[in-house]
Amino acid sequence: MIHIGRSQDIQPRLYDDGENVRSSEKRILVGPKEDAPNFSMRKFTIGSGGCSPYHTHPWEHEIYFLAGRGEIRYAGGSRPVEPGDYAFVPPNDEHQFVNAGNDDFEFLCMVPLEGEDG
Amino acid sequence: MIHIGRSQDIQPRLYDDGENVRSSEKRILVGPKEDAPNFSMRKFTIGSGGCSPYHTHPWEHEIYFLAGRGEIRYAGGSRPVEPGDYAFVPPNDEHQFVNAGNDDFEFLCMVPLEGEDG
Repeated sequence: MIHIGRSQDIQPRLYDDGENVRSSEKRILVGPKEDAPNFSMRKFTIGSGGCSPYHTHPWEHEIYFLAGRGEIRYAGGSRPVEPGDYAFVPPNDEHQFVNAGNDDFEFLCMVPLEGEDG
Repeated sequence: MIHIGRSQDIQPRLYDDGENVRSSEKRILVGPKEDAPNFSMRKFTIGSGGCSPYHTHPWEHEIYFLAGRGEIRYAGGSRPVEPGDYAFVPPNDEHQFVNAGNDDFEFLCMVPLEGEDG
């Protein structure tokens, strides 16, 4: 049966170790709990001054930027992103998402189920 | 290598048969051309008065609503959706997306590669 919801009603999980990952909220909109068969859709909100960890993993990201001003950092460079931009991070590519503005930086990030930790 | 782009720079494919599907533009942001290994990310823009076909298929949709006012129709009912809402359409569930307002109705729709026709 079709499941419809409001993303702001999902309880976020906060990631912040004060160093490598800061002010990052993750909301799983569609994933294992909804019996998604192949991939998961998550919404991230990174507060001002926040960032995701600089890391790599054996699965891809497909990303769409929703709000705020951000920067993607990767091996050898970085690039600003804004709402309406999208990104494909192939498996095993290093990457980090940084809030480069004063407002929340929001994006959707889809991963295959092997990359969903719950 | 990370691929970053602007969704408005993607050339859309128009779907309009004057009856079952009307004023629907599809932009493939990430898919087979980018060597996506598992699933595809597309952006749909449905103009005022437009709709996607009422149909079903053996793969799922994961959807995030970006702009405008819309309606999801399904077996036995319908429901309004607005920006910030999301939907999971399981495999083989009937569904249709209808523009219920005067502005463009926009959403992202992810599918496994078996459901991507190019």
